Amino acid sequence: MSFQGEQYPGVKEPTADSQGFRLNHTMLRVKDPEKSLAFYSRVFGMRVMRRLDFEEMQFSLYFLAKLEDGDRVPEDAGERTVWTFSQKGLLELTHNWGTETQDDFAYHDGNAEPQGFGHICFSVPDLDAAVAWFDANQVEFIKRPDQGKMKDVVFVKDVDGYWIEVVEATRLAALGK
Amino acid sequence: MSFQGEQYPGVKEPTADSQGFRLNHTMLRVKDPEKSLAFYSRVFGMRVMRRLDFEEMQFSLYFLAKLEDGDRVPEDAGERTVWTFSQKGLLELTHNWGTETQDDFAYHDGNAEPQGFGHICFSVPDLDAAVAWFDANQVEFIKRPDQGKMKDVVFVKDVDGYWIEVVEATRLAALGK
Repeated sequence: MSFQGEQYPGVKEPTADSQGFRLNHTMLRVKDPEKSLAFYSRVFGMRVMRRLDFEEMQFSLYFLAKLEDGDRVPEDAGERTVWTFSQKGLLELTHNWGTETQDDFAYHDGNAEPQGFGHICFSVPDLDAAVAWFDANQVEFIKRPDQGKMKDVVFVKDVDGYWIEVVEATRLAALGK
Repeated sequence: MSFQGEQYPGVKEPTADSQGFRLNHTMLRVKDPEKSLAFYSRVFGMRVMRRLDFEEMQFSLYFLAKLEDGDRVPEDAGERTVWTFSQKGLLELTHNWGTETQDDFAYHDGNAEPQGFGHICFSVPDLDAAVAWFDANQVEFIKRPDQGKMKDVVFVKDVDGYWIEVVEATRLAALGK
């Protein structure tokens, strides 16, 4: 049997009630979808699976996935919506209409006070190549691999200032040992 | 060829530079890990893949996964760290030591002002069964399936007050149509 989890105070054994639950997406509000879509498609290779517009409430949702070999995404919009909400590890960007033209408008990144949400994290096959790629795209760094106490861990900012951690899994084997 | 993404202003065609990038995790700060671990293991069936302690900086990280049939998680801690940072759709909980004993301490959910982060979302195979399961576990609802403008979409709160959306993919086929 595969490893079933570390035990700490509070941890309960899952029951059948949560079978089939999947962590589908994380939602972040964005000021200007054109800039966010450019950033996440160009720099992180994500694609828009579905945009949903809510005219009455004046907002749009963009569901972004990083497609992988073997993913079979339906062409039909309805089937694609079902596919989208069945996946793991998507990003939902919420655009409240009009924020993109307000000069003084900005969202809160969760790391300044008041704190809460911290970051999203991408795993990459080659951290050095990723760093070069970010530099080639003028991505703003919070921390490069050789800075700070956590070596081999990179933090960059997205266009709204949200933090994105970037790691190469094989370089983290010694973490916590 | 599978569907390759909807086109909107800003969207770029991904290049080989982002090949192999995966959205690994979302990090949320939690006040009391015992309560958070109880909630996410019991209610959502997640398991702790790795805890990493940082004594000098006085915090611990808990990486939680919702394991699925076919997942082969290594027993060895180092191999398991690499496995953890190679997956999609994990949840990282950060515990800054000592917050659990501060009566007036609370994290910011991102939906009150100042806004930013919105929620995480779980996809479930049966929304009605999930709602009954949440009720059986005294989970706090923000919105039940029949409330508000978005039918069939549920929002609950985790123990820190972060919002968790819960959906059943097949019930959302008509969204945006």
